[in-house]
Amino acid sequence: MSPEEFRRHGYALIDWLAEYQQRVEDFPVMSQVAPGDIARMLPERAPEEGEPFEALIEDLDRVVMPGVTHWQSPSWFAYFPANASPPSILAEMVSAGLGLQGMLWSTSPAATEIEMRVLDWLVDLMGLPHGWRSEGPGGGVIQMSASDATHIALVVARRRKREGARSENMVVYVSNQAHFSIEKGCTVAGIGHCRKIAADEAFAMDPGALRASIESDIESGLLPIAVVSAVGTTATTAVDPLPEIADIAGQHDLWHHVDAAYAGTAMLCEEFRVHQPALDRVDSYTFNPHKWMLVNFDCNVLWVADRAPLMEALSILPPILRNAATDEGQVIDYRDWHVPLGRRFRALKLWWVIRSYGAQRLRDLVRSHVAMADDLASRIESDPRFELFAPHPFALVCFRHVDGNDTTRTLAAALNDSGKVAVTPSEVDGTAFIRVSIGQTYTGQRHIDALWDLIDEFA
Amino acid sequence: MSPEEFRRHGYALIDWLAEYQQRVEDFPVMSQVAPGDIARMLPERAPEEGEPFEALIEDLDRVVMPGVTHWQSPSWFAYFPANASPPSILAEMVSAGLGLQGMLWSTSPAATEIEMRVLDWLVDLMGLPHGWRSEGPGGGVIQMSASDATHIALVVARRRKREGARSENMVVYVSNQAHFSIEKGCTVAGIGHCRKIAADEAFAMDPGALRASIESDIESGLLPIAVVSAVGTTATTAVDPLPEIADIAGQHDLWHHVDAAYAGTAMLCEEFRVHQPALDRVDSYTFNPHKWMLVNFDCNVLWVADRAPLMEALSILPPILRNAATDEGQVIDYRDWHVPLGRRFRALKLWWVIRSYGAQRLRDLVRSHVAMADDLASRIESDPRFELFAPHPFALVCFRHVDGNDTTRTLAAALNDSGKVAVTPSEVDGTAFIRVSIGQTYTGQRHIDALWDLIDEFA
Repeated sequence: MSPEEFRRHGYALIDWLAEYQQRVEDFPVMSQVAPGDIARMLPERAPEEGEPFEALIEDLDRVVMPGVTHWQSPSWFAYFPANASPPSILAEMVSAGLGLQGMLWSTSPAATEIEMRVLDWLVDLMGLPHGWRSEGPGGGVIQMSASDATHIALVVARRRKREGARSENMVVYVSNQAHFSIEKGCTVAGIGHCRKIAADEAFAMDPGALRASIESDIESGLLPIAVVSAVGTTATTAVDPLPEIADIAGQHDLWHHVDAAYAGTAMLCEEFRVHQPALDRVDSYTFNPHKWMLVNFDCNVLWVADRAPLMEALSILPPILRNAATDEGQVIDYRDWHVPLGRRFRALKLWWVIRSYGAQRLRDLVRSHVAMADDLASRIESDPRFELFAPHPFALVCFRHVDGNDTTRTLAAALNDSGKVAVTPSEVDGTAFIRVSIGQTYTGQRHIDALWDLIDEFA
Repeated sequence: MSPEEFRRHGYALIDWLAEYQQRVEDFPVMSQVAPGDIARMLPERAPEEGEPFEALIEDLDRVVMPGVTHWQSPSWFAYFPANASPPSILAEMVSAGLGLQGMLWSTSPAATEIEMRVLDWLVDLMGLPHGWRSEGPGGGVIQMSASDATHIALVVARRRKREGARSENMVVYVSNQAHFSIEKGCTVAGIGHCRKIAADEAFAMDPGALRASIESDIESGLLPIAVVSAVGTTATTAVDPLPEIADIAGQHDLWHHVDAAYAGTAMLCEEFRVHQPALDRVDSYTFNPHKWMLVNFDCNVLWVADRAPLMEALSILPPILRNAATDEGQVIDYRDWHVPLGRRFRALKLWWVIRSYGAQRLRDLVRSHVAMADDLASRIESDPRFELFAPHPFALVCFRHVDGNDTTRTLAAALNDSGKVAVTPSEVDGTAFIRVSIGQTYTGQRHIDALWDLIDEFA
């Protein structure tokens, strides 16, 4: 494809995407295909001869679109958001077009230095500890996902305690409401035990139960190594009590990791920071701009209060990667901050989103989503058919039908089958409920009104 | 940004990228900036108000470009290639625009089914074992990097042997020429020992030394769990003897992982498959379409001969991810194949590259790069100032100046400082040499001629 053809097909695809942005509400939110439907449209074997690019574009509509679940629909209320935005989409294209690798500072200095600076911006914008900025002892790094960030934090925690210890005897503590990625991270890291601590009635970790579990494990000869606090759990956006957990972590020399994958974005607004006090006493913190901050997946951020143990755990320097800047210790080489060596120029989309919207509009967006969630929660509370299942500190509303699990599940299925919205049926301790996550880039009050009408109709 | 503004700025960036493709040879291949030069151009704090998008585009030229090392230059001979191509760049944009998540089949069936089908295409195109196709016991998955794929293979190997065993006592074997990612994978997975086995004069693993090391470790009470064979090492593209290693792996019940990160692409051409016999006796295999197959980073592929132990190691199903298709076991959920939960629609770019070029042109490209490497190697061999340092089974040429390490290093530095090419200075066992990796999308004979003229001039 010559530059001229690239220009022609590129314009056509820009048009296609602009139209997608305009017609996204016309599609059923969740794909309606059955297993195998898409595969049956694909040839058994790869083509020997190249096909005209127009055929590929046509297949976007013919083959791909029926199998797309529209995470970018403003009526997307399922899981958490995974927002795209126009500046982020364009940055992703430019990053692909430059095709550079940011594994070392020297392999493209702009990628490293823009990442450092933009993550420093976020430290200030989110009110995080000043020492997490790149000129301090800590620092931030873009990773693929919160699962990766948490896994890495657990690996560092495991290595801190490794002298004479068996990883099979090590214990990590989370609330029983924590995301499964922490248990998965323990499994992947070979840590023997992931202890799920009881939560209170608001689904927040009970510090007394944490302390008791640690003491019991120590008595049994096990080795507590880390505790993971959630600021906004996946099921209900519950918030663990960070100061009490930090006290316990300090007493037992545990690595304290904070998972704010979803709720981190809310910290752009000062009024939400009440949910994350005591950050000066945590060791690592992760959140996903690729959820609620309009930056395309993947863009997770991991901060550490002290970068030395992270780099000690992950830095191996073969001759092929040696270079003067690294040898002189003048630069950060981000390959030492995660498992993969290669890395895309992901900082570009984060930089462009923040510059294009500006901090104020990002805050406005968070506040508008939270206001819509408050409004929906009020309607639910004042309707005798429903009850709220959990507090709603951010923009997730969890509710159920008072007639019980079956009616609640039937309602969730009816909403999703309508094709007009997507919500997530979930359950905690055998109690079914419906998660309504408000946060897609273009969700507005009219989408909440339409959702409420559907809930009212199907209930 | 409205759809109309997206269209306008999108066209402008398509133009910018088309021009970049035309002027990439005008830039110094390696960025000339000093540490801090880029950061100094960035404000200390994020903007409160959004900036006009034109300012962001202007900063591509003003701020970003001076800090770019041009991996997409046809005079890029450093490391291995990390190729972009026009269809892949456009696919990356469409994937970002759709902004879907492929973590479960149900969260966008097209992403999963296209990935399964296209990886099945590659099984056939590369002459891999039929059982690795998705309808067999095995299967393939796109991961971020070969480091991730190898790490996951080692985690599965560790879990296979976990009953009563300490991971600190486990041993993984690689040649002393293997990529550092294997040692890093062991460290991250908490595997106690990564044994580096002696290589022969062609830098291939010595199976006798492997056998002796395993036996010695068993005598010492350690537990061998896995061996990693390289098809094309990073330093010199050496090829380990797969049949002999497979014999030893079979006798000692080791997981046998093959790292063909770079050379896998060559297997599109039947004549290179002589370098990877005995694949029916390996457990996992990884290669990077994002190196030499014109697919933008990230796009690594991991195949396993049996997907059951992989999924056992990595599958945890919380209520929030339950859905009918998964419950009925009708579908693959790729989140169970790696650490991260979320996943981009990366199969789109692989699908588009194969369809747009066709298998034949991809083979032609491999063969043309290998022919250029053979040509360069001939010139080096017939010039008394130089000697080849290693065999060149693919498209990497390793050579040195006969005057020794200092002259060789000076030559490499002169080539890179010229700004006209990028090569990688490297060393094995204290012997310095220069790696010339030929494989950028648009590298042609004239770029090899120009490189040779520079070598001749600076030597």
